[in-house]
Amino acid sequence: MNKDWMGKYSGSSSLGLRPSSTEQVSQILAYCSLRRLALVPQGGNTGLVGGSVPVFDEVVLNMSAMNKILSFDEVSGVLVCQAGCILQTLEEHVSQRGYIMPLDLGAKGSCHIGGNLSTNAGGLRLLRYGSLHGSVLGVEAVLPDGTVLDLLRQLRKDNTGYDLKQLFIGSEGTLGVITAVAIQCAPKPASVQLAFLSCPSFAAVQQVLRHAKQSLGEILSAVEFLDQESMAMATQYLPGVSNPLAQAGPDAAQQQQQGGGGEQGGPFYMVVETQGSHAGHDKEKLEGFLEAVMADGSVADGTLAESQAQAAAIWRVREGITESLVRRGAVYKYDLSMPTHKMYELVQLVRQQVAHLPGVKAVGYGHVGDGNLHLNVSSPSGYSDELEQLLEPFVYEWTAQQSGSISAEHGIGLMKAPVLGYSKSSEAVNLMQRLKVLMDPHQILNPYKVLPGVEHMGRVEMYDDR
Amino acid sequence: MNKDWMGKYSGSSSLGLRPSSTEQVSQILAYCSLRRLALVPQGGNTGLVGGSVPVFDEVVLNMSAMNKILSFDEVSGVLVCQAGCILQTLEEHVSQRGYIMPLDLGAKGSCHIGGNLSTNAGGLRLLRYGSLHGSVLGVEAVLPDGTVLDLLRQLRKDNTGYDLKQLFIGSEGTLGVITAVAIQCAPKPASVQLAFLSCPSFAAVQQVLRHAKQSLGEILSAVEFLDQESMAMATQYLPGVSNPLAQAGPDAAQQQQQGGGGEQGGPFYMVVETQGSHAGHDKEKLEGFLEAVMADGSVADGTLAESQAQAAAIWRVREGITESLVRRGAVYKYDLSMPTHKMYELVQLVRQQVAHLPGVKAVGYGHVGDGNLHLNVSSPSGYSDELEQLLEPFVYEWTAQQSGSISAEHGIGLMKAPVLGYSKSSEAVNLMQRLKVLMDPHQILNPYKVLPGVEHMGRVEMYDDR
Repeated sequence: MNKDWMGKYSGSSSLGLRPSSTEQVSQILAYCSLRRLALVPQGGNTGLVGGSVPVFDEVVLNMSAMNKILSFDEVSGVLVCQAGCILQTLEEHVSQRGYIMPLDLGAKGSCHIGGNLSTNAGGLRLLRYGSLHGSVLGVEAVLPDGTVLDLLRQLRKDNTGYDLKQLFIGSEGTLGVITAVAIQCAPKPASVQLAFLSCPSFAAVQQVLRHAKQSLGEILSAVEFLDQESMAMATQYLPGVSNPLAQAGPDAAQQQQQGGGGEQGGPFYMVVETQGSHAGHDKEKLEGFLEAVMADGSVADGTLAESQAQAAAIWRVREGITESLVRRGAVYKYDLSMPTHKMYELVQLVRQQVAHLPGVKAVGYGHVGDGNLHLNVSSPSGYSDELEQLLEPFVYEWTAQQSGSISAEHGIGLMKAPVLGYSKSSEAVNLMQRLKVLMDPHQILNPYKVLPGVEHMGRVEMYDDR
Repeated sequence: MNKDWMGKYSGSSSLGLRPSSTEQVSQILAYCSLRRLALVPQGGNTGLVGGSVPVFDEVVLNMSAMNKILSFDEVSGVLVCQAGCILQTLEEHVSQRGYIMPLDLGAKGSCHIGGNLSTNAGGLRLLRYGSLHGSVLGVEAVLPDGTVLDLLRQLRKDNTGYDLKQLFIGSEGTLGVITAVAIQCAPKPASVQLAFLSCPSFAAVQQVLRHAKQSLGEILSAVEFLDQESMAMATQYLPGVSNPLAQAGPDAAQQQQQGGGGEQGGPFYMVVETQGSHAGHDKEKLEGFLEAVMADGSVADGTLAESQAQAAAIWRVREGITESLVRRGAVYKYDLSMPTHKMYELVQLVRQQVAHLPGVKAVGYGHVGDGNLHLNVSSPSGYSDELEQLLEPFVYEWTAQQSGSISAEHGIGLMKAPVLGYSKSSEAVNLMQRLKVLMDPHQILNPYKVLPGVEHMGRVEMYDDR
């Protein structure tokens, strides 16, 4: 409970509590508030920015026993469940009833829905089903003083006062502890099509994205990209993972072995997924799309998943990159959003920055359909000040210059609290700090996270006197 | 500026200001904050709950001069504009560039986008494009003390700290004044299909909704209903408006003249719209849908719009109901959301309540696809205590019993501030009040609106000493 799964962050808490009801969460928070004891809520502990592990000796509030599904309405598609439910369990539950969850991410096998909301998780379906700020209908949360806030409505529309539930979506457990969730699920698509493509350049990747939006319209559900270096990581470090195009066509395999071609260090790979209600229509749209991208040369090679197993193998490559990098060693992770045409320029700049360091590799992949780049720098010899200084604040400054976000979907956590200012003005940070003081006056909830220097605001009592 | 368009609410302000820049808004708010002068921000003044007119002598902040479109990105579809832009002007602007606005409502010819955000307007496209909490990417707002909060990002994903822009969406100008907006537009559909249907009962209406979700899937963009009494209002009080089925088929016209049939006071009418990227596919899906609803008897008669003019005539009926009711006289308006199967029961109960009052009529219509009922009670002889006491708190209590919302999309404004408690717990209202005090400590911004009795919280200085 003291370490994150990457082994990058660790605290020294000696107390973990595992409540099984909202009432217990309320009692714990009321007690901790009175005694000025700090807590860190912990869901599946799959975060990437150190948001869910203690920094010092905070009490760990483990949410895994609050894993009940409370209701599912098969007419409206609204799921109500406790915060500790695992995303994949929920996906299976609603899938049997003709629906899918509006979000999907690599960590689905262990992440909690409460953690997903707290971090405003994005993931693979955001392009189609939008952000959790839109798809979450209700929340039950416990405030730091133990007050239970019942906002667990199941209504699509409810304009009765301030939309308080939004405060808990994306605030990373610093304003309250989410204990239950009502979420709008989407009808399960009758037809899911998946294409894996290779593109000679990042310009071609953007061209494919434009074609996909045009030809696939309302059935487009994901447009992902990975570069050659990401592919190499996944195939080298994950057992049983291979390049889907290496099986499909000798050209692609050859190209891969040669280290690719295009002027920007290609080839690049793309995953394009559609979800629709009519297989015949969907396939016809996909054929039109593939014809267009083949005809103008933006796609060099491609394959369509013919079975669930093939689809899973394709997704395994894309979703496995994070894991492969962790297996290789230390990873500096940057999760950025910016205008699409700028995305890969940064990967190349960073690659130049670290070129002289043996074994250090920069890889670029992510949700290109949402303008979201995952830039990862792998260092088998571990974390080092030298490497970090080559990367930061360079990456943040460059992103800020493009009016980008220094955290598209991973959140701020402990890792990025000091650099929040690259994406938010001082007026905005000031209002965030005032909100934090309003809702958590004794600063007991997930301290040191999200906000820079909130401990200097004057209302903090230290809790190491317990 | 002192009256709302329905003539229901009026104040006695003697000062209206019309800023043309964010800087001017900031100066006005800073001055008013210092002098403890109250203000009411006013957009198109098309609201239905008295939220945008002064109650006493508040300064009116007219936003109509802030009507510049700042940018439109034809690749990403992100529009950035000032808050005083009229929705229809924006729709025309993005339409010429291959996009549509993610919201559409009857008042589009005069409502402002800033007002749309402040009231979290729902409207006709919510079913397809979701709420503004999802589609708004950025906001610029001025806080009551004059601080300009620049949250005007154009990114689909940005998890850097608390999502402060959400505070201004739906808070009805009580926490800050929205001065500019960045909003994600949707690709303009290549094909829009519109069906106008009649159903023998409200059970049939629900059956049609189920079929529409199944057969039309991802292209479904609106499912609206109106009852026979709503149709009678629109056709009687709006010049040139007629029942689209009266032209299309003699059966429907006859049925209408006979005052309808079904066991629940039918016929009911429905508007079903699709928006898709492929006319051939969309028409095929629509044919499948129409076959299914004709076959099982849930639709008695129907017509498809064959031209833009016919589509406009159909929408005129649905969108004109509000206007026709105002032409008839006083209107008690209820904008409720609740489980779909409960919606029409309430209309019938209210009809019984007022049956003995001559000329008083209850009509039901709304966004059935979102569980949103507009229940309107028309009283040609004006507002009366007797009638009001028949309706309230009955309507609110009944709605609360169904775990519904007493304001699905219209907001709270002045009208519903005293009854907020029917939809929100005391803990939630308390947190709202504390947020209000945090952000507007002198209570200068849109006082008396949204929150019940915030003036009793102790930090209010009265401003009638100016």
